[in-house]
Amino acid sequence: MPHPTDQSAAVTVLGLGPMGRALAAAFLEAGLHTTVWNRTPGRDGELTARGAVPAPTPEEAVAAAPLTVVCVVNYDASDAVLRQAAVTTALKGRTVVNLSADTPERARDTADWAGRHGIRYLDGAIMTPTPAIGTDDAVFLHSGPRELYEELRPVLAALGGTHTHLGEDAGRAAAYDIALLDIFWTAMAGYTHALALARAEGVSGAELAPFAQGIAAILPPLFTEFAADSDTGTYPGELNPITSAASTMTHIVHASEAHGIDASVMRVIEGQARRGIALGHGTDGFSRVGEVIGRR
Amino acid sequence: MPHPTDQSAAVTVLGLGPMGRALAAAFLEAGLHTTVWNRTPGRDGELTARGAVPAPTPEEAVAAAPLTVVCVVNYDASDAVLRQAAVTTALKGRTVVNLSADTPERARDTADWAGRHGIRYLDGAIMTPTPAIGTDDAVFLHSGPRELYEELRPVLAALGGTHTHLGEDAGRAAAYDIALLDIFWTAMAGYTHALALARAEGVSGAELAPFAQGIAAILPPLFTEFAADSDTGTYPGELNPITSAASTMTHIVHASEAHGIDASVMRVIEGQARRGIALGHGTDGFSRVGEVIGRR
Repeated sequence: MPHPTDQSAAVTVLGLGPMGRALAAAFLEAGLHTTVWNRTPGRDGELTARGAVPAPTPEEAVAAAPLTVVCVVNYDASDAVLRQAAVTTALKGRTVVNLSADTPERARDTADWAGRHGIRYLDGAIMTPTPAIGTDDAVFLHSGPRELYEELRPVLAALGGTHTHLGEDAGRAAAYDIALLDIFWTAMAGYTHALALARAEGVSGAELAPFAQGIAAILPPLFTEFAADSDTGTYPGELNPITSAASTMTHIVHASEAHGIDASVMRVIEGQARRGIALGHGTDGFSRVGEVIGRR
Repeated sequence: MPHPTDQSAAVTVLGLGPMGRALAAAFLEAGLHTTVWNRTPGRDGELTARGAVPAPTPEEAVAAAPLTVVCVVNYDASDAVLRQAAVTTALKGRTVVNLSADTPERARDTADWAGRHGIRYLDGAIMTPTPAIGTDDAVFLHSGPRELYEELRPVLAALGGTHTHLGEDAGRAAAYDIALLDIFWTAMAGYTHALALARAEGVSGAELAPFAQGIAAILPPLFTEFAADSDTGTYPGELNPITSAASTMTHIVHASEAHGIDASVMRVIEGQARRGIALGHGTDGFSRVGEVIGRR
């Protein structure tokens, strides 16, 4: 295995799924000496052709650079690599940036583990799909020691896009990540359902999509309004009371089930709206449901 | 009650909720002789001050103009007005545009009723909130006889915005409406949940909202992709397989429930994803779920 002359311009990438490969490719593109490792062999062909150095074991991989970037499926998977005794030992005094996705709790637990073993640790989340890596469109969130984040900024810049440090609490990037993915996947589930309902009504995806994009366009100002409602605990409903939303939801459930389409997502949402009405909040806006489902 | 000299420039609005009042105000603004009626009296004060003529009964209201625009809470409510014998009789030879919201089935049923009674009928849906009425931002969908739609375009133009005729089937506007509201309310429910989750993690709405707007911004191209998947029955998952989506959903459920936040919407969505995986589609994209929940 070649020894890089300038370790500060060296990085190791653990995990070569589509996202890990995109990260390694971006580091190579930026001229960094890049060592790669993946649990399942055979994923590094294209990367080694472009100059990446494959490591035979994860402990050799992390020893090859002062910084290891981890991108695996979740923290069970990152624990399974990082917490092997040989790997933990090799990481002592080095830095780990974990860009795998999981809960804030797991991120904090990993930061604690790193602290106990003399490993510098920054947690992170990637908010954009694989093709955005290395481009201006990429969005990265980070949390952990600000000083470490500032030190790593030059090498993180190789990944392109926007990097934001959200705070010293290691769980903060995961908290944003999970809240944003909550929005994303719920919206995509709603859209997938709408496509099925439209198809049953003889409306194709190509016909619906332009109007669906109009719906996406009206969300941003409403996101700002609902955020203010949540922050202030006031839920104005003059223009669109929960009762009106619940009535619409009933139509969606009926129209879906008349076509044999599972409407259980909307049934749950309608139930939350009707619970808000039952609690006496029928003239409030739908943002009130944030309290119905929470503890406040 | 004054008799307008030019009935072609006269319109009646039945239903004076926030949306009905906005429609009547837009007609008045455009200089149309506007007659108004509402089941519950006392909603027309501001409109009569601006020149609207209040009718004492719905039959007198519809007799005052060749065109009646209906905007009430649903088709139970519009039936309760239009299908009164005196109103139905008064409407014979006249035109109804029903902008109330309900299912495609109810729209078709109302078109059939109108046909049986010699009433010309156009169904419609309003896709934008009340403040958009009369502005360029308003979006109206219509379905029913194209000839009638073309004839009504000049008067509908008084409402501002974009008008689209979707087809001769009277249920088509409602089909688009309900599919688009499915997207809208599911997305807003996801956002409301995300705000509750973020708050439990110490992240305010004001902190989350700018990133949430980034999520809204990545939806339009994905809407186009998922629409093509639905139309072609192919569900490519190379970059984002259902297994990966399901893993993210598990994190969202765990993180929510750890804070005592109801995660039943995401539990249902995760269940649909896992059902897709169980059916052997784990390497497909999430758009495959459109088949899991439907009949195809």
